[in-house]
Amino acid sequence: MHVQPLGLARLLADLEGGVTTPERTIGAALERIDALDGDLAAFVRRAPRESLDAAIQASGPLAGVPFGVKDIFDTADMATEHGSPLYEGHRPVADAALVAMARAAGAAVLGKTATTQFASLDPCATRNPHDLSRTPGGSSSGSVAAVAAGMVAGACGSQTGGSVIRPASYCGVAGYKPSFRLLPSVGMKTFAWSLDTVGLFAAGVADVALLAARLSGRPLAAPALADASGLTIGLYRSGVDDAIEPAMREAWEKAARALEAAGATIIDLAEPAALSAAREAHGPVQNFEAAHALMWEHRIHRGTLSPKVLAQLDEGAAISPPVYDAARRTARIGRRAATTLFETVDALLLPSALGAAPEGLGSTGDPALNKLWTLTGNPCVSVPGLATAAGLPLGMSVVARFGRDTEALALGALLEARLRASA
Amino acid sequence: MHVQPLGLARLLADLEGGVTTPERTIGAALERIDALDGDLAAFVRRAPRESLDAAIQASGPLAGVPFGVKDIFDTADMATEHGSPLYEGHRPVADAALVAMARAAGAAVLGKTATTQFASLDPCATRNPHDLSRTPGGSSSGSVAAVAAGMVAGACGSQTGGSVIRPASYCGVAGYKPSFRLLPSVGMKTFAWSLDTVGLFAAGVADVALLAARLSGRPLAAPALADASGLTIGLYRSGVDDAIEPAMREAWEKAARALEAAGATIIDLAEPAALSAAREAHGPVQNFEAAHALMWEHRIHRGTLSPKVLAQLDEGAAISPPVYDAARRTARIGRRAATTLFETVDALLLPSALGAAPEGLGSTGDPALNKLWTLTGNPCVSVPGLATAAGLPLGMSVVARFGRDTEALALGALLEARLRASA
Repeated sequence: MHVQPLGLARLLADLEGGVTTPERTIGAALERIDALDGDLAAFVRRAPRESLDAAIQASGPLAGVPFGVKDIFDTADMATEHGSPLYEGHRPVADAALVAMARAAGAAVLGKTATTQFASLDPCATRNPHDLSRTPGGSSSGSVAAVAAGMVAGACGSQTGGSVIRPASYCGVAGYKPSFRLLPSVGMKTFAWSLDTVGLFAAGVADVALLAARLSGRPLAAPALADASGLTIGLYRSGVDDAIEPAMREAWEKAARALEAAGATIIDLAEPAALSAAREAHGPVQNFEAAHALMWEHRIHRGTLSPKVLAQLDEGAAISPPVYDAARRTARIGRRAATTLFETVDALLLPSALGAAPEGLGSTGDPALNKLWTLTGNPCVSVPGLATAAGLPLGMSVVARFGRDTEALALGALLEARLRASA
Repeated sequence: MHVQPLGLARLLADLEGGVTTPERTIGAALERIDALDGDLAAFVRRAPRESLDAAIQASGPLAGVPFGVKDIFDTADMATEHGSPLYEGHRPVADAALVAMARAAGAAVLGKTATTQFASLDPCATRNPHDLSRTPGGSSSGSVAAVAAGMVAGACGSQTGGSVIRPASYCGVAGYKPSFRLLPSVGMKTFAWSLDTVGLFAAGVADVALLAARLSGRPLAAPALADASGLTIGLYRSGVDDAIEPAMREAWEKAARALEAAGATIIDLAEPAALSAAREAHGPVQNFEAAHALMWEHRIHRGTLSPKVLAQLDEGAAISPPVYDAARRTARIGRRAATTLFETVDALLLPSALGAAPEGLGSTGDPALNKLWTLTGNPCVSVPGLATAAGLPLGMSVVARFGRDTEALALGALLEARLRASA
C-alpha cells in the first residue's frame, strides 16, 4: 500500500488560500476511504449524508478538515459501540465534548474509527498501512491507520496505557498525548478515570500541534524553533529498556545526535526509584478503576467481554481499596518526582515503543515505555521520521513538564524536521 | 406532612435479625412512595416490576435496603433524563458505576429521583417534606426529599457547588460529600469534571456512614466515638458569613457548645486568603468546564436549556483558556491551603447553609458555604439535629482533611448524638 498521510498544515493553507474547498477535501477523503478501507478496516462506521452535507457548509478554523473519531467517543449522529457487542447499535443522545469541539471548529467528522474493546488490549481488525500483516497498535487502531493512510487529516484517540503514542510510532505519524485533562474526556467511555487521556493524531508534529490549537483555542502551535541551543535533553534510561529492540536503540541514538547537532545538550538520566515504583502502580490503579467503571458489563455481561478485558476486570475486582489507595499514593509521589526531573532537563527523549509494529494481528504491542507518562500526566509527543532498515516506522517520544505542552510540541517538530532533512 | 426518615442502621439490624424481610421493606417503601409522592414529587420514574423482583431476591450487605438514584446517574433498566427535555425517554445501555455498586451490594433501586436540569440551579418540582411550600434544596432535590420522607433508606446525589450538603440541611437528614473521587462518577452526567462529586443521603450520620461503607467496601463506618476529648475543632470564619441568618448562627453556637461539652477544644479559625481566592475560582472553573461538557446541548439545543443553566454556559463559553488555567492554579493553591488548616485542627465546623430552606419553589437556595469544599475536595458531612424555632431543620457541616472521611463521619455522628440527646 502506498502510504501518504494528509498534512494538516498544508491542507489548511490550501483551504485558506482558495486552492481547494471543503467539498473537494471531504470528497477526496471519502474516496480514499472507499479505496483503502477494505484492506485497512480503519472505520467501523461512516457519517450519514446529512452530517457530511453540514460539514461541507461548516465554518471555523478546521472547516474542510476530514477528521476521524475513535469509537469510544459519543456521537449524536452515529452509533458508538466501544468495540463491544453489548453496545451494538447504541446511539448516544449527545456528542462527546471533544466531538462537539471538533464540529464547533468546523471539522468534518467522516466516521467512527475502530477501537479495541473498551480501548484495552484485545486487537480489532484494523491493519497497519505500512504492512498489512502487522498491527497498527492499539487501542486507537482505526484512528492511527486512518491518519497514516491519508483518509483523514486528523483523528482523536485515547491513552490509558500507551494507546496514542505506541500506535503513532508503529504507523509513522505524530501522536500527541496532552497534559492530563487538557482536552476533555466527557462523553468518552471510561476505563480508568485517573488515567484515560484524550489524544490526537496527525501526519507530522506541526500538524498535530495545529490540530490541538484549533480544537482547543490554546496556543499549542508555536512558531517553529530555529534550533535547540540552550536546551538540555535527558535520555531517559529505565529498567524497561532491556526490552528495547536493536533498531529502536539505533533510532534513539540517531534522534539524540540530531538534537545535539541542533544545539541541544544531551545527558543521560537514570530513572529515579519513585518513577520505577509509579510504573508498577499503573496496573493496580488502572484495573481497580476499570472494575468499577465497567462493573455493569463485568457483573451482568461477563460472557461478552474479550479475554484481556476480562482478565483486567477480574484482577481489578480482586484489588482491595487499601491496595488501590497505596497505588494512588505511589502515583502521587511519582507525579512529584516527574516534576523534579524537569529541574535538570527541558525535555526527555525516549522511544515511543520497544520496536517496530509486531508481526501479525494477535497483539497490539507493548505499552511498557508509555504507561508511566500516562500515570504522571506529562505531555508526550511521538515524533515520526525514523524507520527500520526494512522501512517500518519508529517513533521517538518527547516528554515535557506537566503543562508544558507547547514546548513538547515545538521540540518534537524541530526533531522531526531535522530527522526528515537528514533522511 | 409527618416526616419520619427510615434509619438504615436499624433497618439493617432488623433485616439481619430476621425481624423483617426484603420483600416487606421494599413493599413498605413502595407504599410510602405511593402515599406521599403526589405531594412531594421526589420521584420522576419508578423501577420496573422485574427490577423490584430481582431486588427482593438480591443478596449482599445492602439487601432489602430501599434506595433512590438521582436522575443524572445512568440506569440500564430505566430512562435517565438529567432534568432535560433533550433526554426525554433516553435509556442508557449500562448502569452508572455507583448504581452497579449499589445493586452489587444488594440494594433495591426503587426509582429515579428528581434533579434540577443538569444538576444546576433551576428548581424542579420537588417539595420539602418539612414544609411543602419550601424548596428541598437542589440539585439533588428528589433524593433528599425521598430520604427525609422515609420513602427510601438511602439515596445518591451529586455536588458541584452545594447540591448534597445544602439540601441535607434543608431537609433534616445526613448528607455526605466524600473526598473527591472516593466514589466513582462514571456514568453520571458531567457538569464540571474537576468539581462533580458523588454524594449520599441517609437518615442520620451513622446511617450514611454505613451506607457508604457497604457500597464501597471501605471502613467508613467506624465504631461510635465515646467523646471528643483530644480533638481540636475550628469554627471556620469566612467573608461569606455575613449572609448567615440569625437562627443558623445560634445553631452553630449550639453545635460548638455540644462538641465542647463532649471534650473538644473549640477555636476560631479565620479563612486564609488562599481559600477566599479559591472560593472565587469556583465559578470560572465550573462554568468553563460546563461549557465544554455540555457543548452539544449549548451549541445545538440552546432553546431547551433552563435559564440558569443557559446563563452558566454562556458565561463559561466566554471564559478563555488562560482565565480558566489561572482559576485552576488558584484552586490548586487553595487545596494546599486546605490541607495546611488541618495541621492546626482535626476538623472544621460551619453551617451547611445560610439558614433554613427558603420559602417557595423559585430557588433551590444558596451554596455559598459549600462550594469552597467542593473545589478543595475535602470530605464534608452535614449533621442533622438542629432546627429553627418554627421547627425547620438546620444542618451543620463537619469538614475534615482530604482522605479523612472516616474521621469526619465519626465526629459528625458524635455531634448528632449529642444534639439529639440535648434536644
